[in-house]
Formats: sequence, C-alpha cells, structure tokens
Amino acid sequence: MAAGTCGVRYSQKPDVLLVTLTEDTEVAGVFTKSQTAAAPIDWCKKCLQSGRARALIVNSGNANAFTGISGVEAVERTSLKASEIIGSLQEDVFVASTGVIGEVLPDHKITDALAGLYKNLGSDWEAAVKAISTTDTYSKGSYKKIKIGSTEVVIGGIAKGSGMIAPDMATMLAFVFTDAKIPKDILQNLLSKLVNRSFNSITVDSDTSTNDTVLLFATGKAKHKEVSDIGDKHIKAFCQALDSVMLDLAQQIVRDGEGATKFIEIKVSGAFNEASARKIGLSIANSPLVKTAIAGEDANWGRIVMAVGKSGERADRDKLCISMGGVEIAAFGQAVGGYDEVPVAEHMKGKEINIEVDVGIGGGTASVWSCDLTHGYISINADYRT
Amino acid sequence: MAAGTCGVRYSQKPDVLLVTLTEDTEVAGVFTKSQTAAAPIDWCKKCLQSGRARALIVNSGNANAFTGISGVEAVERTSLKASEIIGSLQEDVFVASTGVIGEVLPDHKITDALAGLYKNLGSDWEAAVKAISTTDTYSKGSYKKIKIGSTEVVIGGIAKGSGMIAPDMATMLAFVFTDAKIPKDILQNLLSKLVNRSFNSITVDSDTSTNDTVLLFATGKAKHKEVSDIGDKHIKAFCQALDSVMLDLAQQIVRDGEGATKFIEIKVSGAFNEASARKIGLSIANSPLVKTAIAGEDANWGRIVMAVGKSGERADRDKLCISMGGVEIAAFGQAVGGYDEVPVAEHMKGKEINIEVDVGIGGGTASVWSCDLTHGYISINADYRT
Repeated sequence: MAAGTCGVRYSQKPDVLLVTLTEDTEVAGVFTKSQTAAAPIDWCKKCLQSGRARALIVNSGNANAFTGISGVEAVERTSLKASEIIGSLQEDVFVASTGVIGEVLPDHKITDALAGLYKNLGSDWEAAVKAISTTDTYSKGSYKKIKIGSTEVVIGGIAKGSGMIAPDMATMLAFVFTDAKIPKDILQNLLSKLVNRSFNSITVDSDTSTNDTVLLFATGKAKHKEVSDIGDKHIKAFCQALDSVMLDLAQQIVRDGEGATKFIEIKVSGAFNEASARKIGLSIANSPLVKTAIAGEDANWGRIVMAVGKSGERADRDKLCISMGGVEIAAFGQAVGGYDEVPVAEHMKGKEINIEVDVGIGGGTASVWSCDLTHGYISINADYRT
Repeated sequence: MAAGTCGVRYSQKPDVLLVTLTEDTEVAGVFTKSQTAAAPIDWCKKCLQSGRARALIVNSGNANAFTGISGVEAVERTSLKASEIIGSLQEDVFVASTGVIGEVLPDHKITDALAGLYKNLGSDWEAAVKAISTTDTYSKGSYKKIKIGSTEVVIGGIAKGSGMIAPDMATMLAFVFTDAKIPKDILQNLLSKLVNRSFNSITVDSDTSTNDTVLLFATGKAKHKEVSDIGDKHIKAFCQALDSVMLDLAQQIVRDGEGATKFIEIKVSGAFNEASARKIGLSIANSPLVKTAIAGEDANWGRIVMAVGKSGERADRDKLCISMGGVEIAAFGQAVGGYDEVPVAEHMKGKEINIEVDVGIGGGTASVWSCDLTHGYISINADYRT
C-alpha cells in the first residue's frame, strides 16, 4: 500500500491511498443503502460480481457523490489507469471516496499520482489511515492473529468516520484485509452477517452517507487447508476474530463521533427478535433527547421510555424494565420503589454510559453504541462548509 | 372553560384546565402512536368509542406516563370526580396530561380544584392556553368563522408544544372546538385526514411523545342543516377552515421549537405518492445535519441529497432536483451549471427557509415544516430536569 498527497482538497495530509492485492484475492462488500449513493458505490457493486480484487483506491476530500455522468467517468478513468499500471482487469480495481457532495472530482490529480504510489508500495498503515480520513480526530485500526487449523492467519483493518455519517466531510469507510484463503461466497456471507453486529449497530446522528463502504479482502496467501463451507469448524476462530476487528473499528468510529464527550452502550433484551432489539436500541441511540440528556449528565430515563415507544417495534409499556450503570431504575411500567438516583447520577458523570432495556416480551437481544449530542456537534456541523 | 393553579409542578402559572361541553357534543381524536403511551391516552381512546364528550381536563407539569396502575387510577379518579360535578357519564370526560414522565401524578391536587373551576367557567382562552403549556415561549391559538349553508359556525383551537415532542416537558397537545353540528364519524374522518397535512407534517427533533393528543369537539349548537355525509358540499368550507386552523396551530408549534431560530418549509414533489413525499420531507426535516447547516446559514445542499437518499423511499439520484429560496441548485443528479450561491446565501440569513425537492419519479407532493437545530436546543435539553 502507499498513501500520497494529491491535493483533491487537502494539501497538509495524505488524501489518496493505493492498496494492491495479490492475484487470487477474493473480496466481499457491504455498502450504503442510500437511494442517492455516490458513483464509486455503483462501481464497487459492479466489481463485486466477480468476487476478485487486485487493487483499492480511496480518496478523501471529495465524495464524488451527486456528480452525474462526470462522476461515473471519474471512477472509470481512475480504475482504468490503475489497472494499466498494475496489469489487472479494470473491474478488479475497487474505488471509494469520502468528502464533499456535489463537487466534480478532479480525478486527474488522483490518476497522475498513481504511478508514483505504485513505485513506493510499502506497509505504512498509519499513512494509509490518514489518507482516508477527513474530520477524524485519531487513526482507527484493528488487528488480530488467529489460527485456521495449525496455520497462523492475520486480519487487519482500517476505518474512518466521525459522524456515523456526515455527508459533507465524514462517511464511514472500513477496509479489512486478511491472508486467509476463504472463497468469496463465504466471505460475503460472513461480512453481511457480522456487519449487523458492528457497523450497522453504531450511530452518531442517524444520518446515512451516500458513500458508506465496507470491503473485506482475502489474499489467500496463508497455507491452511481450503475452507469450503461456512459451517467449517476451522473458520470459527476466524469468524470470531473478524467479528472482533469489525466491532473494534465500529466502536472507534463512535468514540470519535463529532462533538462526542461520552461513549454509550445500549443493551436491549427481551425484544420480539434480534432485529427488533436492534431497532429499539437504535431508536434510543438516535434520540436527540436521550443524547442531550446524557451530554447533560442527566439520568433522564423517561426519555428512554419515550424512545422505546417511538421505535414502532413491539413493546408493552407495563413489562418494560430500564437500568443505567447497572442500577435498575424502572420496572414493569413504573419507577422502582425507593429508586436511589445517587449512584446513577455518579455513573452519568463518567465517560462510558451503560443503558440496559428489557422489553419483556421475547428473546431478542442486541447491543448498539452511540455517543452524546453536544454543543460540539452543533459547532462542527453548523459551520463546517463555510 | 376555566384554568387554575393546582400546583402539580408549577405554582407560578395555571396548570389545570377544565372545559365543559354542552350535551350532544360529538368528538374525534388522534393520539400518539407510541408503544409506551401514557395512561390518559388509553383513557381517551376508550372514551372515544361513544363519540360523545361533556368535559376535557388537561394538566401540565406531569405527563402521568410510565406510572403503572397508579397512573390508571389517577385518570379514573379525575374523570369520576369531574363527572360527578358536571353530572355526566364518567366516559364523557376526556383527560390529557403533559410534563415529566415516570413521576406519580398527585391527582388529588387536580380533583380538589375541579369544583372551584366549575364555579368559575368563562371564556378566558389565554388562561386556558397557559394552563396546558410547559416550555412554550408563547401562546398558541387559531380561530376561523365560516358558513355552513347560510349559518355561521366557528372553529377555535389551542395547542401547546415546543419540541414536536420532548417527553420531559413538552408533548404536543391540540384541542379544537366548533359549534358545527357534524356527526362523530364524519368528524373523525376529517380529523384523521387533515392531521396528516398538519400535525403529522411537523417535526422539531424526530422524537415522539408518550402523550401527544389532538381532540376535535363539535357542540352542534349552530343551527345549520344536518350534515350526513363527508362528501356533503355544505361542509367543504368547514373542512377548509378546519384544515387552516390545524395547520396554523401546527406551524405555531414548529416556530416555537426548542432553540429554534429559523422556520423551515420543505416542499416535496415528484415522489411516488403523497405518503412517500411526506416521508422524504420528514427525512430532510429531521436530519441533524440539514438542521445544523441551516442553523449555520450554510446552503449545504449535499446534506439534502443525503437525507433524500436515507429516507428509504423510492428515488432516482439522477432525476433529483433541489432548490433553496427559489433558486435551482441541483438538477438531474448534479449541481446546476454556473450555480450562483450568492442569492441562496442571502436567503439562508433570513428567518424563513424554503427548500423544494423534486424527486422526479411520480406525482406525489407534500409539505412539511421544521426548525433548525441550534446550541439553544442542546442547552434546553442537556440540562432540563436537573
């Protein structure tokens, strides 16, 4: 990999990343569900059909979103140029962008830089993370070693994002690499499943980017026995490690939420099913009133009741139980008798806030993560572009 | 009607309202869709089955929400006491509450006040509005006179709310009264239809209260010919006037949104259908990034593209057109050539912001109203309860 400064928007930090991948690299991807997705999203979805990858190019500073035909052409020129330099099919070059929406991408700045980057390939992960970052206040990476059979394999990932989204200067991007040899169908299956528990279980402000992208590349260089089935017991450890890397990256993004001062974990149990539990969790995690109460260190559990109610998911007011910081506050439709707010008020002063909600109607559980809504968020987003 | 200060929470302003209604008053209602709705909501829904009403009691300062069996009993004692005083069926007494969630309602303070209020019935609308208000910064009322046939009828309404919701100290309540003689089925039909265009088309912060209530009472005292059908041409003017009163009240609520400095009108056209247009409009109206951009007077239309995309509604990126302040900014999937931001930047400095979005795929239109998201909202909600 190699990072460079090509000046699309930034000149003080790297803004373009080239990652090359050995032949036989298989790839899986998950993308934004936005109906107004950016040009690189369409391109990646098309490339994903073959399940092969030879390169990844990421730029920061311009999202190449809502740029019409010129956006499509920019992606085509970029991937074509890269394929010529590395000698691959054009469709094996994945492209991702993050930054301002609606401005034409000066892709010549990227294509002009590619040959130089290709000559300087190395393994500077720190520079790679910087190249894909925008408003991020720290670098996000995660790494695990595990064994498949008796063969050691590695999983390493990088991410950016500091609003779950903020289409102007954020977007969530994550790229995970492994040398494990796992066929694309199994990779995609794993990624699609695990993304629900990680990147789809975090929120900063409920807004969804036009450019969100998670790609998982497996080079297959590790010399373990071939994995032919998702139920294969040899990939259980791989699956757990991948889960852990993705969750780590996802939580790093929330901790860097725009203006965030507190990290919030919300555990929902007793919901109708897992999807319902996640939706209730995200309803709490996205509620401006819950998030501002936490910013104000106020154990205002009534707002949690409200957020459960507004989720639209099955719930029964008179079975609902709520705890904060491990202290049961409300149970079976009303405040717990003799509830002592003192330990909860103390918990609210911390940097890590725990909320537990038992819906009381089924076996569905889920955890989601969020951050508080502060004056900092308003300052960052009310004045960003100007 | 009569307003009094019974000290449920406030002692500096009226906090309880009694409205009595003549015999034969018919009533229609629309309530929060929250799964954790408050006890008075359950009560009103039950009362609504008969379609008759003789009284309305509203208190502010305590929502009687998430209060278990004691909340149910509080509503029963209040309605029973009122029915004894006015000599009606208990089920003809409607009850609404707004205020803090999860605290037991000291309903004896309300029941003790009822006899005194009944002796002092009058027509002090200003005091009535004050009695139902919490964080509202001004009184909200609306009034129209129209004719059904040759008979003059009046429609008058009051409302409170200053977050579309804020379950702690807000909630949206609206009560509309008319002397028209319209059967309950037609009333309910009209109310259910018109509420979508008014109270269901406003948002301050996307949170949904446990207590939202809209009630429409028709005393039938006006001497016009009976209306027996919703298609009756005699009620066309009534319908328009009711629409206008409800829309006026709804917009007054948004203008008083917590921390709001700007009133935002979003007109969506070209959506798949009306419901889809409304959902796209509300996705824009609820987006923290759109709302903070407007607070910052930044014509950041990329965030509008994002919000359309995240709505989940049918849209085509390459057919989408966006205008602000009457100036076309983006059309058919990209920025308009030679777009001049100067007049739009000027528009953003005003107090009334207009956004028009043409989705370009169908005939659905809708308008929604919102306000900006400011430091004021954070200050009000981060520190409220403590």
